[in-house]
Amino acid sequence: MSKPLNPARPGPVTRIRIKELTGATARDRRDDLATEEPLEIRLTAPDGTRRTVAITMRTPGHDFELAAGFLHGEGLVGAGDIATIAYCTDEDLPPEARYNTVTVRLHVPIPDLPALDRHFLTSSACGVCGSASLDALHDRCRPVPRGSLKLTPEFLYALPDALRAAQGVFGKTGGLHAAGLFSAEGTLVALREDVGRHNAVDKLAGWAALSGRLPLSEHVLMVSGRTSYEIMQKALASGIAVVCAVSAPSSLAVELAREFGITLVGFLRGERCNVYSGAERIS
Amino acid sequence: MSKPLNPARPGPVTRIRIKELTGATARDRRDDLATEEPLEIRLTAPDGTRRTVAITMRTPGHDFELAAGFLHGEGLVGAGDIATIAYCTDEDLPPEARYNTVTVRLHVPIPDLPALDRHFLTSSACGVCGSASLDALHDRCRPVPRGSLKLTPEFLYALPDALRAAQGVFGKTGGLHAAGLFSAEGTLVALREDVGRHNAVDKLAGWAALSGRLPLSEHVLMVSGRTSYEIMQKALASGIAVVCAVSAPSSLAVELAREFGITLVGFLRGERCNVYSGAERIS
Repeated sequence: MSKPLNPARPGPVTRIRIKELTGATARDRRDDLATEEPLEIRLTAPDGTRRTVAITMRTPGHDFELAAGFLHGEGLVGAGDIATIAYCTDEDLPPEARYNTVTVRLHVPIPDLPALDRHFLTSSACGVCGSASLDALHDRCRPVPRGSLKLTPEFLYALPDALRAAQGVFGKTGGLHAAGLFSAEGTLVALREDVGRHNAVDKLAGWAALSGRLPLSEHVLMVSGRTSYEIMQKALASGIAVVCAVSAPSSLAVELAREFGITLVGFLRGERCNVYSGAERIS
Repeated sequence: MSKPLNPARPGPVTRIRIKELTGATARDRRDDLATEEPLEIRLTAPDGTRRTVAITMRTPGHDFELAAGFLHGEGLVGAGDIATIAYCTDEDLPPEARYNTVTVRLHVPIPDLPALDRHFLTSSACGVCGSASLDALHDRCRPVPRGSLKLTPEFLYALPDALRAAQGVFGKTGGLHAAGLFSAEGTLVALREDVGRHNAVDKLAGWAALSGRLPLSEHVLMVSGRTSYEIMQKALASGIAVVCAVSAPSSLAVELAREFGITLVGFLRGERCNVYSGAERIS
């Protein structure tokens, strides 16, 4: 067995020794890394049936929220179907593996797992394409209502600094993606970080699902990186009306935003940004 | 059916109209987005058996290399097992879906697909953890030989600019991840870009596999973003000895690099960088 950098229960940060080169000079120093470890998400039904639904590489921390958010975002299990969430307590497991397995006990039978890929596959014979993926999303997600949310440019321009200020010192080094949820008044309601940007959003959604806050139609999601189909799909599943990002969206992120009525902002830096969709929510 | 931004065969860039906010001023302008569309990878065996092995969101372009690189990197199918690669020519498919499905015709039977997840799962009862993932990798990947590659700091410092210079104007805007393969002399041998950084590396590996260049033990991989377990696993499968990145590695990326003898460099910017593993290849 290889010697792990994280011998015991892994935390979000792993300290190691590295060599730093500056010009022609090398020196040894300590460095902090974002921890990356697999998380296995298992479901258990009332009749005792068990099934692993996902194994995802993630930064340890807020694992129950990650599990709940993933299940919600994929349209598999709503928060109301969850009885308990716990780390695997199987004593045959070494401790480091114990904290990498989360068991979600359901009030309901285990859902069909082909659903995991169903949003990519179409029910017709038309193969895969972006539009078909969006059409399939309509089966489980409704467009975000127009709502009363109305934001000023100043509101938007303040988000990146607010997100950065709330990140840990380590997160600011670029080792972690951040996702922050803001109220309509601009207050940061929750922040989650992860090596995987989709996990950071799952953790936020799971937090909202487990605390009975869904849908988040009066909230703004701000992410530190780019926006892709996957991020937008997760935002949509939580009913988020406005998604802002420091970097660029993909074509399918914009297509999804336009199709489902989400305001999508990108390249939000300093006193400027691009609005790709839903400009009517910005005054 | 939703109206796609990419009505015909999708290219790597999608042009749309957006609203740009600068201070309190808004103006409409055109903008280029990185195209994101699903790619379905299908296998066909000599006896006619077919199976879909993956659906991944990617930027169209170099799709055959992406398919070959994905199959190679996951340890499913070597380049020598591939007879032909083609877009799906099923006339029932609308054109936009046709270019999102690639059929890989094999000389050999279709491999067991549980292998897709096997590197996460352990063969014992020990659950999932980073070290177990690395142990499982030993089943299909050998450590990279020490080899003769010896690089100077100046060699490393020149890589980011060389990568950026070779990217298209669009790639430089941050809409696409880039992966470049450099020779020991510092020449850029191949560059691939994608909305998914793992896809950019798969495309490079597929290019090398299909042109008979594997293993890449005398080459250097430079990526525009971070390094994770997934990126390092793909580099390892291609025998790459040195991986450099503009941003941070995760803990498991470092662990994999140390375990398998890969030199891993991060935060390569200007005249500085961090060496996380394999410093003996740097003079």
